[in-house]
Amino acid sequence: MLVVMKAQATPEEIQAVCDYIEALGYRAHPMPGAQRTAIGITGNQGEAERGSLEELSGVAEVIRVSKAYKLASRDVKEEDTVIRFAGTDAAIGGRALAIIAGPCSVESREQAFAIAEQVAASGAQFFRGGAYKPRTSPYAFQGLGIEALRILSEIRERLGLRIVTEALDNESLDLVAEYADVIQIGARNMQNFSLLKRAGKLRKPVLLKRGLSATLEEFLMAAEYIMSEGNYEVILCERGVRTFADHARNTLDLSIIPAIQKVSHLPILVDPSHGTGRRDNVLPMARAAIAVGADGILVEVHHQPDKALSDGPQSIYPAQFARMMDELEQIAPIVERSLSRGIQVTATASGTS
Amino acid sequence: MLVVMKAQATPEEIQAVCDYIEALGYRAHPMPGAQRTAIGITGNQGEAERGSLEELSGVAEVIRVSKAYKLASRDVKEEDTVIRFAGTDAAIGGRALAIIAGPCSVESREQAFAIAEQVAASGAQFFRGGAYKPRTSPYAFQGLGIEALRILSEIRERLGLRIVTEALDNESLDLVAEYADVIQIGARNMQNFSLLKRAGKLRKPVLLKRGLSATLEEFLMAAEYIMSEGNYEVILCERGVRTFADHARNTLDLSIIPAIQKVSHLPILVDPSHGTGRRDNVLPMARAAIAVGADGILVEVHHQPDKALSDGPQSIYPAQFARMMDELEQIAPIVERSLSRGIQVTATASGTS
Amino acid sequence: MLVVMKAQATPEEIQAVCDYIEALGYRAHPMPGAQRTAIGITGNQGEAERGSLEELSGVAEVIRVSKAYKLASRDVKEEDTVIRFAGTDAAIGGRALAIIAGPCSVESREQAFAIAEQVAASGAQFFRGGAYKPRTSPYAFQGLGIEALRILSEIRERLGLRIVTEALDNESLDLVAEYADVIQIGARNMQNFSLLKRAGKLRKPVLLKRGLSATLEEFLMAAEYIMSEGNYEVILCERGVRTFADHARNTLDLSIIPAIQKVSHLPILVDPSHGTGRRDNVLPMARAAIAVGADGILVEVHHQPDKALSDGPQSIYPAQFARMMDELEQIAPIVERSLSRGIQVTATASGTS
Amino acid sequence: MLVVMKAQATPEEIQAVCDYIEALGYRAHPMPGAQRTAIGITGNQGEAERGSLEELSGVAEVIRVSKAYKLASRDVKEEDTVIRFAGTDAAIGGRALAIIAGPCSVESREQAFAIAEQVAASGAQFFRGGAYKPRTSPYAFQGLGIEALRILSEIRERLGLRIVTEALDNESLDLVAEYADVIQIGARNMQNFSLLKRAGKLRKPVLLKRGLSATLEEFLMAAEYIMSEGNYEVILCERGVRTFADHARNTLDLSIIPAIQKVSHLPILVDPSHGTGRRDNVLPMARAAIAVGADGILVEVHHQPDKALSDGPQSIYPAQFARMMDELEQIAPIVERSLSRGIQVTATASGTS
Repeated sequence: MLVVMKAQATPEEIQAVCDYIEALGYRAHPMPGAQRTAIGITGNQGEAERGSLEELSGVAEVIRVSKAYKLASRDVKEEDTVIRFAGTDAAIGGRALAIIAGPCSVESREQAFAIAEQVAASGAQFFRGGAYKPRTSPYAFQGLGIEALRILSEIRERLGLRIVTEALDNESLDLVAEYADVIQIGARNMQNFSLLKRAGKLRKPVLLKRGLSATLEEFLMAAEYIMSEGNYEVILCERGVRTFADHARNTLDLSIIPAIQKVSHLPILVDPSHGTGRRDNVLPMARAAIAVGADGILVEVHHQPDKALSDGPQSIYPAQFARMMDELEQIAPIVERSLSRGIQVTATASGTS
Repeated sequence: MLVVMKAQATPEEIQAVCDYIEALGYRAHPMPGAQRTAIGITGNQGEAERGSLEELSGVAEVIRVSKAYKLASRDVKEEDTVIRFAGTDAAIGGRALAIIAGPCSVESREQAFAIAEQVAASGAQFFRGGAYKPRTSPYAFQGLGIEALRILSEIRERLGLRIVTEALDNESLDLVAEYADVIQIGARNMQNFSLLKRAGKLRKPVLLKRGLSATLEEFLMAAEYIMSEGNYEVILCERGVRTFADHARNTLDLSIIPAIQKVSHLPILVDPSHGTGRRDNVLPMARAAIAVGADGILVEVHHQPDKALSDGPQSIYPAQFARMMDELEQIAPIVERSLSRGIQVTATASGTS
Repeated sequence: MLVVMKAQATPEEIQAVCDYIEALGYRAHPMPGAQRTAIGITGNQGEAERGSLEELSGVAEVIRVSKAYKLASRDVKEEDTVIRFAGTDAAIGGRALAIIAGPCSVESREQAFAIAEQVAASGAQFFRGGAYKPRTSPYAFQGLGIEALRILSEIRERLGLRIVTEALDNESLDLVAEYADVIQIGARNMQNFSLLKRAGKLRKPVLLKRGLSATLEEFLMAAEYIMSEGNYEVILCERGVRTFADHARNTLDLSIIPAIQKVSHLPILVDPSHGTGRRDNVLPMARAAIAVGADGILVEVHHQPDKALSDGPQSIYPAQFARMMDELEQIAPIVERSLSRGIQVTATASGTS
Repeated sequence: MLVVMKAQATPEEIQAVCDYIEALGYRAHPMPGAQRTAIGITGNQGEAERGSLEELSGVAEVIRVSKAYKLASRDVKEEDTVIRFAGTDAAIGGRALAIIAGPCSVESREQAFAIAEQVAASGAQFFRGGAYKPRTSPYAFQGLGIEALRILSEIRERLGLRIVTEALDNESLDLVAEYADVIQIGARNMQNFSLLKRAGKLRKPVLLKRGLSATLEEFLMAAEYIMSEGNYEVILCERGVRTFADHARNTLDLSIIPAIQKVSHLPILVDPSHGTGRRDNVLPMARAAIAVGADGILVEVHHQPDKALSDGPQSIYPAQFARMMDELEQIAPIVERSLSRGIQVTATASGTS
C-alpha cells in the first residue's frame, strides 16, 4: 500500500504517519516528490488499516500498489530518481548522462592510473575497476582485493573521479562500501538475495546488473530487495542476456530501457562491453544505448587490452573512448540529454585538486 | 573460389573468364567493384582448376573463400552494395538512410492512401503494406491479395513511393515481382529454400528478414541462396529474435548490425515494429537502430491502429512517424549518414509528378 | 464452433448438418468419435447461427471452442487420433509405438537398402530417408530427388516398410504424396503456411516437425492449417528447440509431450537424432522419449555414418538401433504401450512377403 | 596437472607427493580410484615442476588436464563418484537410484511430518524441505529458518530419512551444515562463487543445481569451485533452463545428463518439479529422467498443495509419489539400476527404529 500525503503536509505529519505504520509492525518508506511525499508500506499483508491511515493528518489518499515491485514502481514515486554525489556535480539519472569507464580489473597502480587519467581527460566522471572478480573458473585471476580498493580510493582523491566497483559477498561488500562511491552487484549475483538485503542496509548507491536470464519483473524485484531494506539509491544496468545468438558474447536487450522507464523511476545504464564482448561493437552499441534513452554507459577501457588479465577482447582503447564521448555528446541533445565533460567540483567539496 | 580481375581488365576478358567457368560446369558471378571486378565461382567442389584460371588473360589472382557464405561475403565484394531504383534517387545501402513505412496489411484503398500520403509527406521514399499475410492462425485475415497489389501499384504511380510487399509462395512471388519494387521474404520463410531460390531467379531486389532463431551465419546463408541463383540485390532486415524476455514481442538484436557489416557487403535494415511489438518502444528502438549504423528502417504506421486488421498495437501514428523522421534526421550525420526527405524524381523518370 | 451430434444420430443427419453449415458459407469437419460424432465449423466469425443449428435433427448441442486451435483440440475430438496404414497393422498414435528409422538422406540404392534391411530386421515398421533436403547452404548436397523416391518405393515393395520422406515445396509435395506413405514437413517449414495448406488438401498423413523456436500454440496452429483444409491425419514431432545450451545441437523439449497430449488428440513422436545431434545421446533420449509417453520415435540410422552425405555425427549404427529397440520394448509396458516387431501384413495386403 | 600414482603406491608415498605439491605452494587433491590414486594439482600456472614430480617415489606419470574443469573431470577420476551416508545404505551415485522427496518449504512440524511419513512409506530415503527460501519477491514467505532445521533434524531421527535442504548464504550455510545431511545450493546461487568456496571448506555433500542459463561447462566449473577447496562430494542437479517455451515453467534439458556423465564422474539428479512447474508433467518427466540415465530424482511432494506457501502447483500428491516410485522401479533395471525401497539401517547406526 501507498500513503499519498497532501502537498502541504508538514515534515511532522509525514513523520507521524511513518511512526504509525511502524507501530503497526510494518515498514514505512517515505519517498519525497516534487509536489508531495508518498510513503510506501511494506511488510503488510492486507488492507485492514487503510481506513485508519486515511484519517491521519496530512494524508491525501491511501492506494493499493498492484505491481509485484512497489518501491521501484512509478506508482509509488512518479519522478525519476536522480542520484547525486556530494561535493561534485556528478549525478546518475538526471538530464546529464553518466559515463562510467575503466578496466575490467584493477591490475596494478600503474595500470589503473594510466587508464583513469585518460578516461578523465575525455570527460568521464566515474571510474570503474574490479577489485573482487567473479570468475567462471576458480583458477582464474580473482582480483587484487583490498589493494585494488586502495588504488581506487587514491584515484578518487587525485583525479576526482567517483568510484564504482563490485562486491561479491558480505566481506567484500563492507570493504567496497567503505572505499567506493557506488557498489556494483554483478549479473551472477542479481538474485543473491542475501547480498541484496545486506546492500539494502547500507547508505551507498548500488549499481545492480541484470541477470543473464532475468525478466523485467525479476530485475525490478531484485532492486526491490535492496529498497525494501531502506536503500532507495539503486541504479539498474542492462548488460546483455543469454540467447542462442553466437555473434556476440551476450545479446544486448536495449528494448528493456524504455520498458523499464515506463514502470520504474530508477535510473538505468547500459554496459555495451559485456553486452557484446567484442571491441568492434562497443561504440555502435554505446551510441544505440544513448539513442534509446539510457541514463548512461558503463564501459570497459584498457590501454593495453591484449595484456589485460580479464576481458581484454571487449575493452576499448582510450582513443576509442574519446571518440565515443564525442559521438555520445552529439546524440545527447536529440534525446534531451547532455554530456558534461570533466569534473566540476562544487563549492562544498574540499581538498581535491 | 574467387577470381580477382586486374584493374585494367576489359569487359571481354571478364566475359571470357565467366565463359570458361561455366564451361567447366560451374556458375560464374561477376561482381563489379570500384577498382576491379571479382568473379565468384559457385558449384565447384575442389581446387583443381585454380592453376588454369590464373593463366587466363586479365586475371590478377584466384583465392579461396573460406566462409560458408561466399557471394554475400566481403571477401568477394569489398564495397557496400547499394541498391538503386530507376527513375528516382531512392536507394538502399548508400549514405542516405532508407525509410520504409506503411501499414501491416493493405486493408482498403482508402486506408492505404490515407497512410501513404502521410508517410510521403513526412519524407518516406518507400511504402510497405501486406497483400499476402503469413498468419499464425488459418482463421485470421490473410490479406487482400491481388487487389492489394493493385492499390500499392496505384500508390507508386500517384505518390512516387517505391513499393515493398511480402511474397509467401510461388504464386504470390510472381505477382509481387510484377507489382512491387522490392520483394519481402518474411522471417518465417527465411529458410524456405525453395522460395529463396525462386526469388534468386528474379531481377528485383529482395528484402530478407531474419528468422526468429537464426544465427548470423544462417541469415547470410539464406541470402546466399538468393544470390547463388544470380540475384545479388538482397537487403537484410533484423526484426527481433525469440528469447525468454517477456517485456517485448521479440528481442531486437541490434548488435547483429555491426557484426553483419563487418563480414558482408549487403545492406541491413531494422524493423523496430516487429522487433518490439509495442508502439511505445518503436521510436526509441528506431533511434537506436540508426545510431548503431543500420542502413534504414522498416516501420509500421497506421492512422487508426485500434481498427487495424493486424499488428495494431505495434503500429505508430503518422504524427509519431513524423517525429521519428525528425529524430533520425538529427542522428544521421553522427553516423555519417543523411536522411533525404521526399521524392526527388530524376530526369529519366516520366509521368509521376 | 462445434456441433456435437447425439449418440444415435444417423449418417444422414450428420450429412444434413454438414450440408447446412456449408450452405452458410462455412466449412464442416465431421470428426467421428467412439460415442458420437462432432462437427467442427471453421470459417465462421460469430455466433449468429448457433440457434438454428441446435434445432437441426440429431444435434445434441452447439458449443464454442475457445482455443485458437480447434480441429487439433481435444475439445473437438476427445479420443486420441490413430493413423492406420491400409494393408498392414502399422499405426501411429495407438498403443503400439511407431518406430521410424533410416538415413538422413537416400544416397544410393545400395545404401538405402543396406540400412532398410537392418532396421526392418530389428523390427521397424517405417523407413525414413530424405529425397529432398533442406540444407543451410545452397552448395550442400540437396538430395537425389525423384531417384530417391523410386528407391524408397522399391523398399516399401520389397521390405514392406511404410515410407516417410520430406516435402519442401509444391513440386516435391506432389511427388512425395505419390510415392510415400507419410509426408514429412520439416522444422524450417513449420510456418510455411502455403505448403501446410497444400498438404491439407491431400489425403496422406502429414508428419509435422516443430519449428526451432515454436511455442506449443504455434505448433498446434500449424497442424490446424493442415486440418482446416480437410486433412485430419497430422502427426506431430518434437525435434529440439534452439537455446543457449551448447552441449547438444538442439535442446530436446520432452515436456511438450504431456503438454500436447493434454490439449490435443494428435499423435506426437520424438526425433532424438536432431534433438541431440550426437550419436552418444540418441539412445538415452530415445528411452526418455518413450518413458515420457511419446507415441514413437523418428531416428536416423546409417551403416557408415562417417561417410554419410548429411548428419553423420548424429546417425546411430544398426547395432545401436537393435539395442534401442530392445530397450524401448522393455519401457513400453510401463507406459501402457507395446512395441510390435516386424511387419505383420494383414489379409487385405497383397504381394509383400 | 594430474599425478597418477602407481597401483602399488603406498599411503606414505601418496602423502609424500601431496606434501611436495603443497610445499611448492599449490594444492593437492588426492582422488583414490579402484586401481590407483590420482592426485590433482590446482593453483599452479605452468608445467615447470613436471620433471621433479615424475621422479618422486610411487609416481607413474604426470599428465596435463586440458579441460577447464579438472577435479570434476573424468580425466582426473575415471570411476563414478558414489556418495555414501554413514549408518545407512543410502547412497547417491551408485547403482541404486537416489530419491529425494518432500515439500518445497517446511511450513510446520505437522506438515513436514505428514509428508515425510508418506514419502518414507513409499520408499524415499532422502527428505527435502526448505528452511531458507530464495524468493523472487522480498515480501514472499522466506522460510521458517532454524525452526525448520530442527523439524528436519527430528524427521531424520524419527524416520531415518537423510535430510537435504538449501543454504542461501554464509549464515544459513553453517546452520544447514550442522543440521542436514546434504547442503543444497540453488540455481540462483550456482555462480555465487563466495558461497561455493565456503561450501567447499565443509565436509558435507553439496547438491548443486544448474543455473537457469548455465552451460555445461559453467555448471562443472561451479562444481569445481567447491571441489577446489577440498570438498569432493558434489551432486549435480538439472532443474530446467530458461527458454522461450511457455508451456512449462522451465525447459528440462535431459540431454545434459549423458553429456555430463561422459565428461564428469559426479552424480547427477533431475528435479522434474522445477523442471516443469506443472503437477501433470512431473511423473512423465521423472520417468524420462530415469530412462535417460540420471542417478535419481529430487521431487516436490505436498499433501495439501493448494495450501502450500510456495510451489503448490508443481507439487505432486503422496499418492502420485507412490505411483512414481512404482514406475521408476520398473524402469530402473532397463538402465542397469535399482530402486531400493525404505531405509535399511546398517549395523553401525543406533537408535533409529
